[in-house]
Amino acid sequence: MTTSTPGTTEANLTQLEYLALNATVNVADGHARQELTETQKRIIDDLPTLFAKAAGEPLEELERSAQQTFLTTFGQHRYPTGPDRVLSCYASSVAMEILARSLAGTVTTVGLIHPTFDNIPDILRGMGLRLTPIEESLLAGGDLDAGVPPEVGALFITTPNNPTGTVLAEDRLRLVARLCRERDIVLCLDTSFRGFDYRAQYDHYAVLEAVGCRYVVIEDSGKLWPTLDLKVGMLVSSENVGLPVPEVYSDILLGVSPFILALVERFARDAADGGLDELHEHIAGNRRVLRETLAGIPGVSFPDEDSRVSVERVAIPRSSGSQLFERLQRQNVYVLPGRQFHWADPERGEDTIRVALARSRGTVAAAAAELRSVLLG
Amino acid sequence: MTTSTPGTTEANLTQLEYLALNATVNVADGHARQELTETQKRIIDDLPTLFAKAAGEPLEELERSAQQTFLTTFGQHRYPTGPDRVLSCYASSVAMEILARSLAGTVTTVGLIHPTFDNIPDILRGMGLRLTPIEESLLAGGDLDAGVPPEVGALFITTPNNPTGTVLAEDRLRLVARLCRERDIVLCLDTSFRGFDYRAQYDHYAVLEAVGCRYVVIEDSGKLWPTLDLKVGMLVSSENVGLPVPEVYSDILLGVSPFILALVERFARDAADGGLDELHEHIAGNRRVLRETLAGIPGVSFPDEDSRVSVERVAIPRSSGSQLFERLQRQNVYVLPGRQFHWADPERGEDTIRVALARSRGTVAAAAAELRSVLLG
Repeated sequence: MTTSTPGTTEANLTQLEYLALNATVNVADGHARQELTETQKRIIDDLPTLFAKAAGEPLEELERSAQQTFLTTFGQHRYPTGPDRVLSCYASSVAMEILARSLAGTVTTVGLIHPTFDNIPDILRGMGLRLTPIEESLLAGGDLDAGVPPEVGALFITTPNNPTGTVLAEDRLRLVARLCRERDIVLCLDTSFRGFDYRAQYDHYAVLEAVGCRYVVIEDSGKLWPTLDLKVGMLVSSENVGLPVPEVYSDILLGVSPFILALVERFARDAADGGLDELHEHIAGNRRVLRETLAGIPGVSFPDEDSRVSVERVAIPRSSGSQLFERLQRQNVYVLPGRQFHWADPERGEDTIRVALARSRGTVAAAAAELRSVLLG
Repeated sequence: MTTSTPGTTEANLTQLEYLALNATVNVADGHARQELTETQKRIIDDLPTLFAKAAGEPLEELERSAQQTFLTTFGQHRYPTGPDRVLSCYASSVAMEILARSLAGTVTTVGLIHPTFDNIPDILRGMGLRLTPIEESLLAGGDLDAGVPPEVGALFITTPNNPTGTVLAEDRLRLVARLCRERDIVLCLDTSFRGFDYRAQYDHYAVLEAVGCRYVVIEDSGKLWPTLDLKVGMLVSSENVGLPVPEVYSDILLGVSPFILALVERFARDAADGGLDELHEHIAGNRRVLRETLAGIPGVSFPDEDSRVSVERVAIPRSSGSQLFERLQRQNVYVLPGRQFHWADPERGEDTIRVALARSRGTVAAAAAELRSVLLG
């Protein structure tokens, strides 16, 4: 997609990401663009064999095996395994679209975590759903019963959250799930960034199934590995979900490529065999480079001290906002503004930017150096 | 996707296709499942190099080159090239979903070709759009001004059509486009099966641009080549389309995999270098096997005598309908019923089935033999 140039204030985040796709230093989108590790390179060298394997195996077994390997690698052992319970999608956003369409007939108001990536509110609103913001702080420690308005028919939580990295802890998930069961709310989780943070890898399904609430979970291989966006989103729903998820799914797709399923399985096995620790070290190293390079600049700080996901928020002096973007873009460096993540109150994101960390060390170092120079200049 | 068993009457076509995915003889879905040709095998052997190329090239150039190669291979030289005019999607159905969402705010009633594959009416209805059937015969030779109701705000035509293979001829496209310009109707074309029929490869964009109507075209690489569903759908729209297509697109995706774009380009080049003739011969051969095997069975005929697409309708004695499916499924042979294609009048499809031809010769021969035995039995 080539695109005309929207302003940083009115464009959505994905439109701003397009601008960065061909930039010298693109630290805008959250896709995985770091280099392949040595063991990942060996998987890529083996692609012709993988193609033959995917062509020869019964699709049902191949899909079941890929789903199981992926989910259990990230600690999800008790996911539902009945017919139509795990649907493979082209991407997590396609899973999101199917979920939104499935909700639209039944639910009027969605309680949506705030802040979060803006395509989630956009997709939900596009289906005519009303949104009410649910603050991260409420989910983390507030009075849920008082804080979730009575009109909420579905509650949508991104965990770990994008851009903050905030993880919904197990005891809080249990409380949220109980509230949802009591009020017959559909609990929706987007766990796309789970792979980056062991604290988000407790078995969510064990909690959800024990409580017995209606739920939908969006799982995603897309943020983790530099597979050139060969990825799978999974739409997992409870037996009792009571939404036409498989019917809507069948309007959009018959299934994903068995080649991609086989590839995701191989990358998940590699992750289980040490690749995940390597990935965490890489992201932590990039985070350190960014923080150290920007250390000591007046008015600059890192609000998500404990975040482990592949994006990092940087708080900047409020006055530097739009000027900052212009000056960075002149150096061909692209980051995302914070405004659009605060979908219910953009002003609150005015003094933050988001820097992607799933890049080579060199790209993050170059972005950090330019940021430092622009913030000091 | 594993799935529970819906009846052949109430299920949608994609749900019936799922049942066939693991069948011994799956001639249900229209995906390309024939064997790779010798030159295609060489592309697959070269996948690691292709991955490296896709990783190293600027995305914008790679995408532009893949789109150009694909479109011009099929005779589409005058497609619009401005910003956001050709958007690469995960699949043609994702392009369809984006189109439906883009129409929903502006258009109330869509005139939709009848019959056609049922996910098109399902996706449009799912967005709250009203549908009115436009018969193939009207498009082919009728009085368009009288036949297209005044309330129609968008006109959707599948050409070549699925399942009939009917091609909208150049002079008829021109008349349709003129009507659309006069009435300010958005003309929507789905040309996913174009690759199978040279008669559908005249330059549609030259006609549309000369007339100057508002238009959207869905192009698709997905039906042609046995790439294990590694594919691209393209959503092409005119400068004057007046719909929020790029905005809706950016809610759903940032872009497709550069690896898939590079692969589609290689397969398109192979098609231009003789692969397309080879594909046409393969499909024609499979069609011949089917027709010859079923020749002489009382009440059996082929209503789409001149069809060249990769699916074939077979007219069967009316009484044999649902019994036929049960008996075929007992032999693990899956075809699609005609009912659901006739989305506005299912009864008219009662006495046809659809057999997929993009399979190995052996699969089509086995399906044809079973069909013969069941129809005679």
